[in-house]
Amino acid sequence: MADNTKLKVTAVQMEPRLLEKEVNLARCLDLIQTAAGEGARLIVFPECALTGYVFSSLEEALPVCEPIPGPSTTKIVDACRKLNVYVVIGLLETDNEECYNAAALLGPEGLLSKYRKIHLPYLGIDRFVNRGNLPPAVCETEIGRIGIGICYDAMFPEHARILALQGADILVLPTNWPEQREFIPEHIIPARAAENRMFIVAANRVGEERGTRFIGHSIIAHCAKGTALARGEPDEENILYAEIEPAIAREKHVVIAPGEFEFNVIKDRRPELYDIISKPPPPP
Amino acid sequence: MADNTKLKVTAVQMEPRLLEKEVNLARCLDLIQTAAGEGARLIVFPECALTGYVFSSLEEALPVCEPIPGPSTTKIVDACRKLNVYVVIGLLETDNEECYNAAALLGPEGLLSKYRKIHLPYLGIDRFVNRGNLPPAVCETEIGRIGIGICYDAMFPEHARILALQGADILVLPTNWPEQREFIPEHIIPARAAENRMFIVAANRVGEERGTRFIGHSIIAHCAKGTALARGEPDEENILYAEIEPAIAREKHVVIAPGEFEFNVIKDRRPELYDIISKPPPPP
Repeated sequence: MADNTKLKVTAVQMEPRLLEKEVNLARCLDLIQTAAGEGARLIVFPECALTGYVFSSLEEALPVCEPIPGPSTTKIVDACRKLNVYVVIGLLETDNEECYNAAALLGPEGLLSKYRKIHLPYLGIDRFVNRGNLPPAVCETEIGRIGIGICYDAMFPEHARILALQGADILVLPTNWPEQREFIPEHIIPARAAENRMFIVAANRVGEERGTRFIGHSIIAHCAKGTALARGEPDEENILYAEIEPAIAREKHVVIAPGEFEFNVIKDRRPELYDIISKPPPPP
Repeated sequence: MADNTKLKVTAVQMEPRLLEKEVNLARCLDLIQTAAGEGARLIVFPECALTGYVFSSLEEALPVCEPIPGPSTTKIVDACRKLNVYVVIGLLETDNEECYNAAALLGPEGLLSKYRKIHLPYLGIDRFVNRGNLPPAVCETEIGRIGIGICYDAMFPEHARILALQGADILVLPTNWPEQREFIPEHIIPARAAENRMFIVAANRVGEERGTRFIGHSIIAHCAKGTALARGEPDEENILYAEIEPAIAREKHVVIAPGEFEFNVIKDRRPELYDIISKPPPPP
């Protein structure tokens, strides 16, 4: 990645249809084409964009789960190759007997990485899937170093921190924020961006499933102060765009006034005092 | 601490005078009396409230440093005893040959705990003091479990997390936020409160020292969503009050809709995947 390379990124705030995977996939392929036509190189879709979220059992969800790589990600890779873009999309993954709330990073090269949500709230399909069993990892790509989280992961500062410590420039966050979680796009996402000096592209959904309404408010946050470069509306489908310079996220040492006010949110850490954070909890 | 006990807390947004410790101490003693008169039981002052912050050398600061316990904290303890209140105040501490940017928790019982800022920006007196050498700890008091941080500590999610994992109900944060850090009271403090389900009382200063202007914006944040219960103005002295119920911070399991939407920001953590956070950084 060259210094000062501008990168157009997109958060696609859309309304997936519960259980209608083929409809959702076709819709996503259309939206990829639209965003690519606007010059976007990184296109982020919501959590469970291919399947919907408020399932009432694992059995109900199984017909729309698939392996990664699998039929849907293969079709999206074809689009990435044709349009020279990178896509992050949420879907439900089956792996032998297990099922994960997952997201895939896809590009012209094929499947670049996949992520399985490690923090699960008791809500929707998360009540039934397995907890992600892989530590969050960063993928080096032509457009920057990308780390993935899914929705509730953002409530845990450890998640974004793990990615920042591995050098992520951009945290992509497919989400399904429901009502009462407005403070997450308002405060938590800007905080994650600023405390790690990392860009964040968070794509939430809109619409309602079985009484659960999702709130939109997708956000693209700048790495310096978490400033929102773009925000989605609360109740409508939106495609958000922003131009970012991933290289800024790599300059962790910030000089406000030379010799008078400087800091480095990574180097100024005190990991020797942080033991309790990675210890197992005491028995109840 | 009884359940549902309401507690009136105060953030004293004031302007300390550089190097004028006796003037500042007298002012603080007056303000303690004022806040106690309004029914406050926990009274939080800014960072370096007794000394000022923008020193140009350690030598210049030494005459206003003192041990903890020491002459100033002893006088404040007298006030705590007389008024039956708890006070957290920022000051510069000497301990043998070392100097720390510190804060003391004082109450009718005497000195309850002290804290030495562990994360230091390159700014003001922090350019010259020693880095805090004690891990953040929680103090059990009659009014709740209290943890202390100082200013830049809040940029590091690890700091508040360490206190939450030790059961803190309230994080008290004496600060000296300068210009360009408005996003900290706006986003970081609400995020720290919500991600840990912990109340926060952050007292910032106002005024200017040697070209550095401090921005006020003190905040008392609720533990559930980080909502500001009180906010200070940008450029004037204010005494902020809020009534909180520390017991709410102990109910980490939150039920939005029983069996449909529940979560627990502490129990849902995955410490077995967090190793990198407490590891020393790789050699440069």
